[in-house]
Amino acid sequence: MATASSSSNVTEVEAADPERAVERSTVIDLGSNTFRLVVYSSVRDAWWKRTDEIVEGVRIGAGTEATGALSEEAMDRALHTLTMYARFCTASGIEHGAVKALATSAIRDATNRMEFLRRAEHDSGLEVRVLTAEEEAWYGYLGAANTSTLRDGAVFDLGGGSAQLTRVEDRHAVEHESWRLGAVRMTERFLGEEEASKKQLKALRRHAREELAKATWFAEQGPRIVAIGGTARNLAAAAQRLGDLPSFGVQGHVVGREALDAVVEELAARPASKRGEVPGIKPSRADVILAGATVFQAALDVAGSDAFEVTDSGLREGVFFSSYLAPADPPLFEDVRRASVLNLARQYGANLTHAGHVAKLALELYDGLAEAGVHKPDDEARELLWAASIVHDIGVSVDYDNHHKHTRYLVLSAGLPGFTPREVALIGQMARYHRKGTPSPGRFAGYMGNGDAKLLTRCATLLRLAEQLERSRDQLVESVRVSADDDRVVVTLTSSSDLCVARWSAERMADAFAEAFGRRLEVAEP
Amino acid sequence: MATASSSSNVTEVEAADPERAVERSTVIDLGSNTFRLVVYSSVRDAWWKRTDEIVEGVRIGAGTEATGALSEEAMDRALHTLTMYARFCTASGIEHGAVKALATSAIRDATNRMEFLRRAEHDSGLEVRVLTAEEEAWYGYLGAANTSTLRDGAVFDLGGGSAQLTRVEDRHAVEHESWRLGAVRMTERFLGEEEASKKQLKALRRHAREELAKATWFAEQGPRIVAIGGTARNLAAAAQRLGDLPSFGVQGHVVGREALDAVVEELAARPASKRGEVPGIKPSRADVILAGATVFQAALDVAGSDAFEVTDSGLREGVFFSSYLAPADPPLFEDVRRASVLNLARQYGANLTHAGHVAKLALELYDGLAEAGVHKPDDEARELLWAASIVHDIGVSVDYDNHHKHTRYLVLSAGLPGFTPREVALIGQMARYHRKGTPSPGRFAGYMGNGDAKLLTRCATLLRLAEQLERSRDQLVESVRVSADDDRVVVTLTSSSDLCVARWSAERMADAFAEAFGRRLEVAEP
Repeated sequence: MATASSSSNVTEVEAADPERAVERSTVIDLGSNTFRLVVYSSVRDAWWKRTDEIVEGVRIGAGTEATGALSEEAMDRALHTLTMYARFCTASGIEHGAVKALATSAIRDATNRMEFLRRAEHDSGLEVRVLTAEEEAWYGYLGAANTSTLRDGAVFDLGGGSAQLTRVEDRHAVEHESWRLGAVRMTERFLGEEEASKKQLKALRRHAREELAKATWFAEQGPRIVAIGGTARNLAAAAQRLGDLPSFGVQGHVVGREALDAVVEELAARPASKRGEVPGIKPSRADVILAGATVFQAALDVAGSDAFEVTDSGLREGVFFSSYLAPADPPLFEDVRRASVLNLARQYGANLTHAGHVAKLALELYDGLAEAGVHKPDDEARELLWAASIVHDIGVSVDYDNHHKHTRYLVLSAGLPGFTPREVALIGQMARYHRKGTPSPGRFAGYMGNGDAKLLTRCATLLRLAEQLERSRDQLVESVRVSADDDRVVVTLTSSSDLCVARWSAERMADAFAEAFGRRLEVAEP
Repeated sequence: MATASSSSNVTEVEAADPERAVERSTVIDLGSNTFRLVVYSSVRDAWWKRTDEIVEGVRIGAGTEATGALSEEAMDRALHTLTMYARFCTASGIEHGAVKALATSAIRDATNRMEFLRRAEHDSGLEVRVLTAEEEAWYGYLGAANTSTLRDGAVFDLGGGSAQLTRVEDRHAVEHESWRLGAVRMTERFLGEEEASKKQLKALRRHAREELAKATWFAEQGPRIVAIGGTARNLAAAAQRLGDLPSFGVQGHVVGREALDAVVEELAARPASKRGEVPGIKPSRADVILAGATVFQAALDVAGSDAFEVTDSGLREGVFFSSYLAPADPPLFEDVRRASVLNLARQYGANLTHAGHVAKLALELYDGLAEAGVHKPDDEARELLWAASIVHDIGVSVDYDNHHKHTRYLVLSAGLPGFTPREVALIGQMARYHRKGTPSPGRFAGYMGNGDAKLLTRCATLLRLAEQLERSRDQLVESVRVSADDDRVVVTLTSSSDLCVARWSAERMADAFAEAFGRRLEVAEP
């Protein structure tokens, strides 16, 4: 959650060192359901971003539940896909030795895995490393802990082959367990080809419950759960759609028990081949999603929890973070929310001297108004104002015209791990209204609660006022002080120079300010 | 229009040289209505982009029609603004000597201009250069000729103080004229403070007609007219809104006579202070837009033309192009449309080796299908397919997920000068559907004509097929040949390697292909 350091250190925000080269890291994740090649580009201590990806629904785990071995057809699909990935790497100038090709449960547990690994290296030239269940859990934890605010609780990673559960205390992974409860496996073991009966679902849920209950701490603590993996992402997307919520990704979305049950009901009412028609569910996952959803129900049953939250990142990002954040041990961002905001700002080349100063002035106004009794301060609102100030101009990287709207588009599209969709929408709207227009929740109202419209209007107004004071972008207005009486707020500017333009610009804000705070704005020099 | 070279040279498309530094050029345009500071960033022979801007509605021309001199209040606003701009430059590391601060008609024609220039330099440290009417027309022409396909016709630049008309032959400016017909001037001379009577409008239109008729070639030729300046942009935006057209900028929009008349009617029905309520009209321009619109009516009257088209660029871009494109004489892009597409691709860091090869394969498919009699070729469609192929991946710069949608967003937001909104929408939709989904004009249907839905479906399908063939991004499929019979199209791939994956990927396109071309797709090796 909001930490003091994330907002008080605004003046220490630094731009990326242009001398530092962009590094690329390539991870190939040979999962039970899909093979995924991912390229991360990054500049150390500055920004990171997934910049390329190839996905192929290989379904290498198909059939293993019955025979214990990878089938010839599945292996064939896998080898062709891996060969294509290898060609992609060569074409992209990525040395095969630098590629981290990692296999998880389906391959790990197959009786003929040595044959597969040998053929994989022969055909593609890539050396595939099989992760232990422990490693699989560890990387999943790193992915989740670096993209959520989880301090104490559990990371639950449901894949096609297995499920990993990691117990987190004070952000550290303290124990983990792994079960063969993956969605592909559970489908083959418990569900029919097309229709799923109540009885089958019940048996599956009971089995999953019994397994998961072996982690006694999970049942006892009823912990906060951060979920990763494709099943979790699909369930969150379906829950958003069923709940008529605006969808700009599932990062940080909280799926309540009722929402999950509603999704399961929709899925169970359809034959397997039609489950991809439930909005939010990918057709390529249609036949295994119901089993995965049922395992999630079982997890909530065991933990006695009301909800799980979703993060987009997982094993692959964990692998990336383990080198990007080294030598930190464990390799975690100090403050995930702050890291996300700065990541976005630097990715899109924001002028952080300007943005950082706008943030400073905006927070001085925020705090000053609180001290003067004009509004009640709130740590979260203050942090959102800081975030919006830092990213307010990134839309210029799309086009100067309408850059306030482009900023919102980038914030919503690229996302801010560590923030909920509601918070991301608030930051996006604050930035959207940093130049003109009347702030309102607009199409994001579905995420907003009581008081959010007011919070938005006030923060957007302070951001706009700070931007006006920093219009010449040279930190001319060094700082501000606020005093107030019943119908008037006086903002006193400190500077060593002539402030005529800054005052002139700020005074145009009088109407918007009166609208937001119900008092007249006056701008004064000391 | 579409030129052979723009599509046949696809393999010569080159990425920007990373060694080349980004250069910044700063222009301050001291216009009669607004002062505008603009920063262009560019890499020679690669890309250019407006990356910063400050606009201030200074209205320095206000009152000059009566007295001939800049008023004390107007001068005061101007000097404060200029001082802020100078501070901005200092803060941005832009030397004052490198700033091109250029004054146009309102200052040029003022009796006290020397006093203003002296005070401007004293207060801001910026040396303001007054453009002659000839220079003003020249730069406007460069802005228009580099962002439109105008070969023979006229560039009409209506500002706050004056109007410039440039005659263009074979893309060269061959003569120009200038009149004191600017929107601020005409408002003060002909219209009342609030209501505009029919009589006043008639007198204004007659006056403008008489003046413009002095350019006899204009009346005789009835030329194609490309219009620049804020009045033209606002009229185009209003015409789009009145016509219920989707609005993603006015670049390239054609305003027909009837649409213009309808906008004038809306404006004339309101008092001056309310004209900013007409959708598309900026409030800061509300009081002078009607006079400007009437001058446009007069221009169409004199030329006997049915329409004018609008480009976003003008004098400021002309100043930029004059150095960016030097030593070309005149400083013009060889092919505006091709330059726009490559500009966009390079700005957002597209992999042009991959994109160029996708374009090559897509055009080989397009041409092959034409030769085999499967469809009728069309130069424009072919060029749009080329353009969509080149930019199809730029959305990755926003975020990898949904990058096809982000590409469309960037294409629509940043624009493609030289293409009409219809063409931009088609390119955007082709790129949007380069991975999945069923291509359709969607919310852009308002711009589409007969046959455009089919054109879109076919081009998007070929782009997707080419992308599948180039999936490993290593130009594995060197080229394609097409043959066809009544119910089947055979695409034969040429390569020196094993094509299993390429065939496998392409064959998944069979349904989409059958939908688009009504024949079965087969992918073969020679």
